[in-house]
Amino acid sequence: MINMTKIAFIGIGKIGQTIAFNTIMDGYAEEVMFYDIIPELPEKFEHEIRHALASKRLHVDILATNNLDDIAGADIVVISAGKPRKAGMSRRDLFLDNAKIMIDLASKLPKKNPGALYIMVTNPVDMMASVFAKYSKEFVISTGDQVETMRMRAYIAKKLKIPIYKVNGFVGGEHGEDAVVLWSTITVNGRPFSESLGVTKAEVEDYVKKIAGEIIRVMGGTTWGPGTIISEIIRAYALNENKVMSIAIPRQFEDEIIHISVPTVVGNTIGPSLESLLDEKDRWNLMASMKDFYNVYKENLKTLETVIQQH
Amino acid sequence: MINMTKIAFIGIGKIGQTIAFNTIMDGYAEEVMFYDIIPELPEKFEHEIRHALASKRLHVDILATNNLDDIAGADIVVISAGKPRKAGMSRRDLFLDNAKIMIDLASKLPKKNPGALYIMVTNPVDMMASVFAKYSKEFVISTGDQVETMRMRAYIAKKLKIPIYKVNGFVGGEHGEDAVVLWSTITVNGRPFSESLGVTKAEVEDYVKKIAGEIIRVMGGTTWGPGTIISEIIRAYALNENKVMSIAIPRQFEDEIIHISVPTVVGNTIGPSLESLLDEKDRWNLMASMKDFYNVYKENLKTLETVIQQH
Amino acid sequence: MINMTKIAFIGIGKIGQTIAFNTIMDGYAEEVMFYDIIPELPEKFEHEIRHALASKRLHVDILATNNLDDIAGADIVVISAGKPRKAGMSRRDLFLDNAKIMIDLASKLPKKNPGALYIMVTNPVDMMASVFAKYSKEFVISTGDQVETMRMRAYIAKKLKIPIYKVNGFVGGEHGEDAVVLWSTITVNGRPFSESLGVTKAEVEDYVKKIAGEIIRVMGGTTWGPGTIISEIIRAYALNENKVMSIAIPRQFEDEIIHISVPTVVGNTIGPSLESLLDEKDRWNLMASMKDFYNVYKENLKTLETVIQQH
Amino acid sequence: MINMTKIAFIGIGKIGQTIAFNTIMDGYAEEVMFYDIIPELPEKFEHEIRHALASKRLHVDILATNNLDDIAGADIVVISAGKPRKAGMSRRDLFLDNAKIMIDLASKLPKKNPGALYIMVTNPVDMMASVFAKYSKEFVISTGDQVETMRMRAYIAKKLKIPIYKVNGFVGGEHGEDAVVLWSTITVNGRPFSESLGVTKAEVEDYVKKIAGEIIRVMGGTTWGPGTIISEIIRAYALNENKVMSIAIPRQFEDEIIHISVPTVVGNTIGPSLESLLDEKDRWNLMASMKDFYNVYKENLKTLETVIQQH
Repeated sequence: MINMTKIAFIGIGKIGQTIAFNTIMDGYAEEVMFYDIIPELPEKFEHEIRHALASKRLHVDILATNNLDDIAGADIVVISAGKPRKAGMSRRDLFLDNAKIMIDLASKLPKKNPGALYIMVTNPVDMMASVFAKYSKEFVISTGDQVETMRMRAYIAKKLKIPIYKVNGFVGGEHGEDAVVLWSTITVNGRPFSESLGVTKAEVEDYVKKIAGEIIRVMGGTTWGPGTIISEIIRAYALNENKVMSIAIPRQFEDEIIHISVPTVVGNTIGPSLESLLDEKDRWNLMASMKDFYNVYKENLKTLETVIQQH
Repeated sequence: MINMTKIAFIGIGKIGQTIAFNTIMDGYAEEVMFYDIIPELPEKFEHEIRHALASKRLHVDILATNNLDDIAGADIVVISAGKPRKAGMSRRDLFLDNAKIMIDLASKLPKKNPGALYIMVTNPVDMMASVFAKYSKEFVISTGDQVETMRMRAYIAKKLKIPIYKVNGFVGGEHGEDAVVLWSTITVNGRPFSESLGVTKAEVEDYVKKIAGEIIRVMGGTTWGPGTIISEIIRAYALNENKVMSIAIPRQFEDEIIHISVPTVVGNTIGPSLESLLDEKDRWNLMASMKDFYNVYKENLKTLETVIQQH
Repeated sequence: MINMTKIAFIGIGKIGQTIAFNTIMDGYAEEVMFYDIIPELPEKFEHEIRHALASKRLHVDILATNNLDDIAGADIVVISAGKPRKAGMSRRDLFLDNAKIMIDLASKLPKKNPGALYIMVTNPVDMMASVFAKYSKEFVISTGDQVETMRMRAYIAKKLKIPIYKVNGFVGGEHGEDAVVLWSTITVNGRPFSESLGVTKAEVEDYVKKIAGEIIRVMGGTTWGPGTIISEIIRAYALNENKVMSIAIPRQFEDEIIHISVPTVVGNTIGPSLESLLDEKDRWNLMASMKDFYNVYKENLKTLETVIQQH
Repeated sequence: MINMTKIAFIGIGKIGQTIAFNTIMDGYAEEVMFYDIIPELPEKFEHEIRHALASKRLHVDILATNNLDDIAGADIVVISAGKPRKAGMSRRDLFLDNAKIMIDLASKLPKKNPGALYIMVTNPVDMMASVFAKYSKEFVISTGDQVETMRMRAYIAKKLKIPIYKVNGFVGGEHGEDAVVLWSTITVNGRPFSESLGVTKAEVEDYVKKIAGEIIRVMGGTTWGPGTIISEIIRAYALNENKVMSIAIPRQFEDEIIHISVPTVVGNTIGPSLESLLDEKDRWNLMASMKDFYNVYKENLKTLETVIQQH
């Protein structure tokens, strides 16, 4: 049998571990690879995973390494390497530090992993996807606003005391505080969202934008939410589920490839995007989001290039 | 907790049993109802299901009945009641016999099941959906060509010796021998379909149109394939999976509501259809399919009305 | 990777299909083989299974054949070939017809499937296991009373309106009307069974012994219950789940190997039996069951040998 | 429907979170409760879990609290509260600190959770179970050596390059460095363990006793392995799976209730233990393990009582 599923996890920190654990326990991957720069970490994580697999009665081949050259032949490469945001750190600082890591990975991973799909997790996630795309010329998606999408649904479901699967709809735009709730897509019990149900738009937007920060403040990071949600994106691609998810695929915007989340079909082929089927207001907000992204991204790129040339 | 999932199965024949079994073993339904006109059949099927649930350690409330009035409060109503096609039977004969059953169900089910989604399985499935919609004014989907979609993928995967999740794409149009392979949507290993891969379009179309007949000839009916596929449609709706599936939702065509399958997002809300995102040729073929459907349907309706008035 | 799981299904009738379908959809088998004497049946069943696998996004290698010689290299061989009991047929008639099939299989299957576990489903199931063991010298288990065990739990749970996983305990002895409810093992909500809960021992025994006949009368056969339960036995072995199940392993009784169900640990190794941990009364009833089995079995064997010599 | 499954998690640290996450994502619990003394932690963890549930389309009722009095009506109480072992800390120090927590929990939890099963996770886990049993008079199990059992199987499978489900057998005794590999129970590919396979007993014992320390040194704690394994113990009880697992149930030893792991059937009723079915040598080692446990435990209890009286 050719074409079994082989997945590489680049970065085995808290979030990388959670994504890898969920993905592996889903049982469809024949082989996984763990890479991290921290000595012994991938190998010790391998032991933990083997103990869990023993309990679940699953067999998966595992390679754990501190050597990036060992990562070869992957169908899917999940990148969560890099620094997490800490108190007092500006988003631009994070951009510069992590962009340098992306440029390094972009120069090394594609040679040994031809045809792989790259899935970006490192923050700022959409810009890191764009940087990786720019320097690697590979197809890379940003896990983008699928996380916000699930937070939005979870909040409305809890507020209205209904099961989560009775809330539908998406959040798009840039991941983080500039995310755009796509109000025309949201339904509750199959009917369009209305504030008369007992929850206001302001509350929903507030929650979607602030809950991550709140969790980080108390728990030191978000793991279970994004870890689960991102493993579902990986599965939708690996198993060709054709699920609509709010992720960002590369798109040309003026002179750059950028990543902005819109509802998109995720299967063994990624797309089409459902952007053209959204209502006018939501499309206008997404367009504004792209412009903002582009402007900040260009500024960041300029600084990045200056920094790189200095070395 | 309000809004738990309650599913009614109208018709507990071979295919109805297989759909119900798969749906129940998925474990998300809190309550199911079985209805059939055959005395004792729903009740004995209930015993079989309870034995299976005991082994799977699942709890589901079950109501089994020969009285249609007992079917109340369902979120989803799956209709497989009616006659299956037998040797020597014309499709129009099947239409008349089963349409009369649909008219009867349309007059009785909606009163006690407000807001339910109706899922049609009885053949000719698209026309039965249209008849049920016409007489009930309810929202009813036809499971349509999701079955052909999976048969197409299975055939290509087997022929090319690749895992099934490496073949994507859809079959649309009317379920049965007039199904339309939507070639622009088909990809293999992420690349567009090409006959140079080792399988011709003619072969694929031949398989999709004839395999059901071949299975019926030897096994007396198709059960495991459609039963599994249709239970996945039910789940996509019940659990709001937002999966793209080739099913038919009601659409106005001239003076009638008709059902023709196109790739459609199936979640707690059904839609949007991705028809406008298909290439021109596939859209043209779907349009032709609709016209054919409409013409045959109108003829059938005329005969049906004559027959009804005679009674 | 060596040692992947390969399962052969000998007999693709109603029950064989249901067991195979459940086992395959569990997703752990890398390869399955279907054998039946009916022309085209295994091959058409393969198509049905491929369509279901396409929908479930599972990959399994499948071999379908009418040639028993093709069945080779299996880890597990599930035997459901033979005649089902029909109205007016005595159990001894069934014994003779199916025993001849077992002798034939016993002479052919072991050569090409070294080290396989044989799992008997054909009725009378315990005696068929003993006949297969006698003529093949292979390790064969009878699915025995795991079916009765689940029917007992399902009945008590329904009667007391509690979830199925709150009823524990086992039925042992010979599968069928001589089954022995092992009362000392039965608990409800963690407490020993007592008639004061609202269900009598007589009712439970009556249900366990008669429900199969009732289902057969209305539905023509039992499929969903046993098919699910037996696929769970297969899984417990294949995935080394170490679950206690009421199945029969070969045991010497006077001059014969016989099969009588007792609670037994089913993992990659089968056993130990928990018989010695049961209370005295239950052990006494099991012993009586063995003697009865032995006597009838010896009589059947005598007739069988006479019939064989006549040919 | 009465008797739905309600599970309380006392302690929401790293291991408590991992157990709760795995248990909840299994989908069978209708309600869960999170308690921790750290302000906001249970509530923020609830948000993370809700985001994950949204993605998995699961509905579970959640209560998050810093007030132990809110924990009421649980069927299962999982206790992981307490201090984890740190560098330079003696096991006795850990005993004293955590035993005081257990005494406090023992005085508060039983009143509001009648009939609950208590599952101990806090280390030293077997002694904490015994302390909790002594002070609460409730039925409490220690998750004991099921973790070592899976580590043993994982090690042998990796060393011999075979799938994990081809290795069977158990580790018993006290959890930690005094664990006892029950060699008579271990099989590989269905045959008894033998060093000639390519792995020595010394290697296996070394791995089982030291791997936890190695993981803690690099990763700061063990989470994925025990978190998965313990959630499977919870499920075996909640869903009445009747799986044989190496856990410790309360047993009288001289004047105390103690906890020493032996292979035990875990279903809705816990037991019987399979100790009497083990070979003589393994039983002798378990007996020695009990005596050691008793002696150390009595010493610890004496110190504990002195410390308590001083307050």
